[in-house]
Amino acid sequence: MKVLVTGIDGYTGWPLALHLLARGHEVVGIDNFVTRRRVREVGSWSATPIGSFPRRQAAVHELLHRELAFYRGDLANYPFVREVLATERPDAIVHLAEQRSAPYSMIDVHHAVETQVGNLTGTLHLLYAMRAVAPETHLVKMGTMGEYGTPNVDIPEGSFEIEFRGRRDTLPFPRRAGSWYHWSKVFDSGDVMFATGIWNLRATDVMQGVVYGTRTPEITDPRLLTRFDFDETWGTALNRFAAQAVLGLPLTPYGKGEQRRGFIALEDSMQSLRLALEHPPAPGEYRVLNQFDAAYSVNELAETTQRIAAEFGLAATIEHPPDPRVEAEQHYYHPLHDRLATLGYRRTRALDDVLREILTDLRKYRRRLDARRHVLAATVAWRSDDSRPALAARRPGAPDRPAEADRSPDPARSPA
Amino acid sequence: MKVLVTGIDGYTGWPLALHLLARGHEVVGIDNFVTRRRVREVGSWSATPIGSFPRRQAAVHELLHRELAFYRGDLANYPFVREVLATERPDAIVHLAEQRSAPYSMIDVHHAVETQVGNLTGTLHLLYAMRAVAPETHLVKMGTMGEYGTPNVDIPEGSFEIEFRGRRDTLPFPRRAGSWYHWSKVFDSGDVMFATGIWNLRATDVMQGVVYGTRTPEITDPRLLTRFDFDETWGTALNRFAAQAVLGLPLTPYGKGEQRRGFIALEDSMQSLRLALEHPPAPGEYRVLNQFDAAYSVNELAETTQRIAAEFGLAATIEHPPDPRVEAEQHYYHPLHDRLATLGYRRTRALDDVLREILTDLRKYRRRLDARRHVLAATVAWRSDDSRPALAARRPGAPDRPAEADRSPDPARSPA
Repeated sequence: MKVLVTGIDGYTGWPLALHLLARGHEVVGIDNFVTRRRVREVGSWSATPIGSFPRRQAAVHELLHRELAFYRGDLANYPFVREVLATERPDAIVHLAEQRSAPYSMIDVHHAVETQVGNLTGTLHLLYAMRAVAPETHLVKMGTMGEYGTPNVDIPEGSFEIEFRGRRDTLPFPRRAGSWYHWSKVFDSGDVMFATGIWNLRATDVMQGVVYGTRTPEITDPRLLTRFDFDETWGTALNRFAAQAVLGLPLTPYGKGEQRRGFIALEDSMQSLRLALEHPPAPGEYRVLNQFDAAYSVNELAETTQRIAAEFGLAATIEHPPDPRVEAEQHYYHPLHDRLATLGYRRTRALDDVLREILTDLRKYRRRLDARRHVLAATVAWRSDDSRPALAARRPGAPDRPAEADRSPDPARSPA
Repeated sequence: MKVLVTGIDGYTGWPLALHLLARGHEVVGIDNFVTRRRVREVGSWSATPIGSFPRRQAAVHELLHRELAFYRGDLANYPFVREVLATERPDAIVHLAEQRSAPYSMIDVHHAVETQVGNLTGTLHLLYAMRAVAPETHLVKMGTMGEYGTPNVDIPEGSFEIEFRGRRDTLPFPRRAGSWYHWSKVFDSGDVMFATGIWNLRATDVMQGVVYGTRTPEITDPRLLTRFDFDETWGTALNRFAAQAVLGLPLTPYGKGEQRRGFIALEDSMQSLRLALEHPPAPGEYRVLNQFDAAYSVNELAETTQRIAAEFGLAATIEHPPDPRVEAEQHYYHPLHDRLATLGYRRTRALDDVLREILTDLRKYRRRLDARRHVLAATVAWRSDDSRPALAARRPGAPDRPAEADRSPDPARSPA
């Protein structure tokens, strides 16, 4: 199978490419390296040292003995998108080329618009290009469990049967997202659902839980490492806790810490995406998969991190700063997730084990964490758009630079 | 009360300004005249001859003895939006400055993106500007009944209480729109709902039915006429039927013609918007109103037009071309609409009477219809993006021109 991975340079895009190549699939990638730029914008970098994309391609060639085709370009450019699809005619597209940070989308009006416009435009361009030149291609689009919010009822996979005033219908489950970013994913879901219906396309919409981990079996060499973000904007809560533990800082669950979310290990996320690819839906089918293994509260993540860190001789305390987000800090949370199992999915990784791997890796790169320790504190608040005036003023206006190694601290490039 | 009307030059914006001025409210308008440009883009014009905006302002001054303040500008320009709000500090904003045509959004990928990006960006800019400089202002944002689609259950006003697997919650009613345009309204609704919650803003989201009519009591002079579109892209089905009847052409309900939608007369739409303005929701409240009087099938509209046209000596036949849209041609349709009545709304206009007014006006401007009779035929198809290659190629790239009178046929300006 030939798979086009948009956003191949990202946290899940890169290990997905390795995973598919290792199983004999052909992989073509697209990226514009905007995530590297945006992470620099907030003064951070990947905890793991990741090479430039050409170095990554060279490592794949040398270590996996496979070719990894790559187009540098932007999904905002429709002729480019259409040309890549017409040239490559992939069997499937895994669409990961979206702004993926809730706090980034909440920085100010410009980041809000950039997030929603960029994500929506890229998806529309893919849908139209598929329709025009690759109507058989299976689109695997990344949504997020965050689209659903935290309703007081179970969360089905995409649709559910309702009874209202004595009549019945099967309808999309109501979405109630918690950031401009999460809403952008809701919008994408609407557009993909609509396009599959009118154009007979096939799509899988993956409501992905929070992905955690630094490793997959294919990452056999430091040159194959994927990025790992730990700052308040790009790092997840678990990533921040792990970095805090390694740096000897208190772990900081926001607010009461009873916010529950669905989680899945990076390796198992690769398994589930591959299963979705290997079992495409029928033409015209819009299939929704809730992709996570288990729900944890933020406090459970902090306590687990504390416990595993202790195995490494790291004594971590837990503090509760005010929640900068607007979200329920205590709520019911019970999403269903049966469909992946029917495709053959089974969980292979436990949170404790993966946390051991994360801490092992982060201890190796402790100096990289230390050089950017200031990025761990929460500064983006949902109720304030003036929280980061410096950031807001520094719009990314410089032309895209060539991919570059992100290996050494460079204060000149880091926002003061 | 001071009301800012965005899109004041449009079909409902203009009579709303007159209606509010006549009741002693202060009105400030914003427009960029993009609808005039877009209607030219599809080779059409308003059946009613509408003057340039300065002429409209002059007519208001002369006939109503009121000043109508106006800012020419684009909601895509955030500093402009913020400045207008900071300068004017309106009590309310009625946000009508959106691309409002489903077929226009379906022309091709560029029109799809233009519609969704433009509508979403304008709304985000208004929300951020309100938060920054006018947090007490009441936003009245136009949604559409089309956001709900045609579910097999009753349609509540915005939210409903559901039971799912033994638990209950009140959630937004699922949206399942039928065009990129309709989805853009769904996206706006999500953003407005989210912003009111996190920033304690007040908003009314009007799920508007199809508005019909050429007249309100305030339109006492031809210089105060509002626009009336009759082409396939910008005109509603009823508008097209009325134009067809006047031109002696067959009326053309698409497909089976059993598609049902909610309708409201222009004059009653003004009444309902004024009631919403005069009864603002509390801070933090996101209020949804389903705004329509009665549901009609497209066949009922055609038959009613045929019957009323006969009173004018116009013999109209009815034909059923294939439906260019992808929609259910026979379906259940029962939306609720009780909330406006609780604000004091009562229907004052009947479809038959309004159709008599429309036909009277269109007969006056029959030569304007005749000069553009080619725009009545359906050419934009939901399943094809190559239906209008000429249109698709002719992107609106020219700089915005000054507002100009739209009074005489000008083949040089009309797309060949």
